Amino acid sequence: MQIGMGFWASKTLLAAIQFDLFTLLAHGGLSATTIAQKVGLHDRGVYDFLDTLVALGLLQREGIYESAVYRNTADTAFFLDRKSPAYLGGILEMANNRLYRFWGDLEEGLKTGHPQNEIKYSGSATENQFDQIYNSPEKLREFLGAMTGIQLGAFMRFADQFDFSGYSTLTDAGGALGSLCAQVARKHPHMHCTVFDLAAVKPLAESFVQQQGLSDRVNVIAGDFFTAPLPSSDVIVMGNILHDWDEEEKLLLFRKAYEALPAGGAFVCIEAIIDNDRRANAFGLMMSLNMLIETRGGFDFTFNDFDRWAHQTGFTKTEWMPLAGPTSAAIAFK
Amino acid sequence: MQIGMGFWASKTLLAAIQFDLFTLLAHGGLSATTIAQKVGLHDRGVYDFLDTLVALGLLQREGIYESAVYRNTADTAFFLDRKSPAYLGGILEMANNRLYRFWGDLEEGLKTGHPQNEIKYSGSATENQFDQIYNSPEKLREFLGAMTGIQLGAFMRFADQFDFSGYSTLTDAGGALGSLCAQVARKHPHMHCTVFDLAAVKPLAESFVQQQGLSDRVNVIAGDFFTAPLPSSDVIVMGNILHDWDEEEKLLLFRKAYEALPAGGAFVCIEAIIDNDRRANAFGLMMSLNMLIETRGGFDFTFNDFDRWAHQTGFTKTEWMPLAGPTSAAIAFK
Repeated sequence: MQIGMGFWASKTLLAAIQFDLFTLLAHGGLSATTIAQKVGLHDRGVYDFLDTLVALGLLQREGIYESAVYRNTADTAFFLDRKSPAYLGGILEMANNRLYRFWGDLEEGLKTGHPQNEIKYSGSATENQFDQIYNSPEKLREFLGAMTGIQLGAFMRFADQFDFSGYSTLTDAGGALGSLCAQVARKHPHMHCTVFDLAAVKPLAESFVQQQGLSDRVNVIAGDFFTAPLPSSDVIVMGNILHDWDEEEKLLLFRKAYEALPAGGAFVCIEAIIDNDRRANAFGLMMSLNMLIETRGGFDFTFNDFDRWAHQTGFTKTEWMPLAGPTSAAIAFK
Repeated sequence: MQIGMGFWASKTLLAAIQFDLFTLLAHGGLSATTIAQKVGLHDRGVYDFLDTLVALGLLQREGIYESAVYRNTADTAFFLDRKSPAYLGGILEMANNRLYRFWGDLEEGLKTGHPQNEIKYSGSATENQFDQIYNSPEKLREFLGAMTGIQLGAFMRFADQFDFSGYSTLTDAGGALGSLCAQVARKHPHMHCTVFDLAAVKPLAESFVQQQGLSDRVNVIAGDFFTAPLPSSDVIVMGNILHDWDEEEKLLLFRKAYEALPAGGAFVCIEAIIDNDRRANAFGLMMSLNMLIETRGGFDFTFNDFDRWAHQTGFTKTEWMPLAGPTSAAIAFK
């Protein structure tokens, strides 16, 4: 029952993020009346809505009803206040605005093997999942925010744990705003990093890098990783990239990375990599279902799959580095 | 992240129920290929779908990929095989066919205070949530199945725990198929029970009672609890009824129950009653949001609310009896 009705809790949190409730509460506790007024909520549901968030551990409350004061928890203040540097609500905004509806057609996706997102209604046989996103400034901003949020914890861990001592350059291919490059450059002053993504992303990434004060060691190059060579670097990272594509396209990306690396260089893939026995990482398996919903041929994969593809494309050894939650890094050395 | 993305796990289980997967597996384990063939699933998502259910603890698996055999767990065999007497998938079928989509508009419900289900599109200012359900044989069957499933555990506990020794008759008002009456009649051979529900339900309830072999002590009476008096009985039960209505309607139902009871008789309300401090029973609070989505004025309530309404309508004392999970019985004695 808890799993089956889980969309109730899910949608309650997603609505709170949509209303920017956790940002509203960043400066202190508020009464339900004030919240209702600022967000534009009707009296009827406001106590049930806020008290559900309390019961789910996403808000704190002193008092009850008219005397109640609602506050952020330590976690919601840190992760869900839009002004927090650790804001990870972007992925949840995208989940609310796009994925919740698309997942409503999961059965059709499972029966047909076809995506259930914008592609389904586009009438084009070749359009991919990114064409519509990259053509709409609003969707692009939301998507990049989502990608920044979902990986922040994993990127921080990777920047801490990976041994950068033998390397001096890193390219993050499909690097979005440059969140990983920023983490690595900040923690490793000897590293020079390159964000490589489509032309539409470049100005947004440059502005992000500048805000972080890292423009001297993080540069942004516009390009398509299917048609252009990757910038030569000691380390090539792809974060949540491989799972977007079918096996043939995945192998092409392995080869692109191989070509751009020196001997001893590392190709690092950061994703919700599925455990080899495919029975522990539920999030990774569902992310693969999400690729069914979102892409024409994408799927998530196990470390064994990564290892096989790495050896098939010339890499000499591989390593598996757990990062945060369901996310890990699969690393192939040239 | 787990709460916010919880709709993924939710929808995966709901799709499995929609495909009747757990009924298909009732006679033994099957390969993914056989499952795909019988359900009509495309190759692309079948392993991710089934392995997600394994990772969520909803299927067992030996082997992997082509060599894998998928089986029910003890719980899914008991609760989610449609042929099991304990089948509670009905509520999840309704969740999948109706609620998942309607909850997609939770924000609009919270902003307007208006229902987000069929009512929203009906153009009628007076139609209630049951008009469309009771006018469609298919929706009615689904709804009654849902009501039977959601309360089965609580009804079994109530039939075990409540002291029936001083009573000989019980009416379940809005009793749907008669699941509660059947539990009570089976466990207490001295009890005579009446299922009271709208005329459209009567033949379905009679057939259910007959299947249970209890027609001698469970009868079915057709009537509308707002316009007809309730049948006189020692115990009047309402299971998931009060929460459908606004406060004035709730008080009317208390008065109807009071009138139908003898001195010492018991009015029993079985619902996901919210803890008085409104911070523990998340399911009850979300059920109240569900009433926002589904009804014009309904809401769930605390035991303190129940106690206040009971005294307001003449009852002399109240009791609170925890049943199963988030569900409890609030009892008012005349």
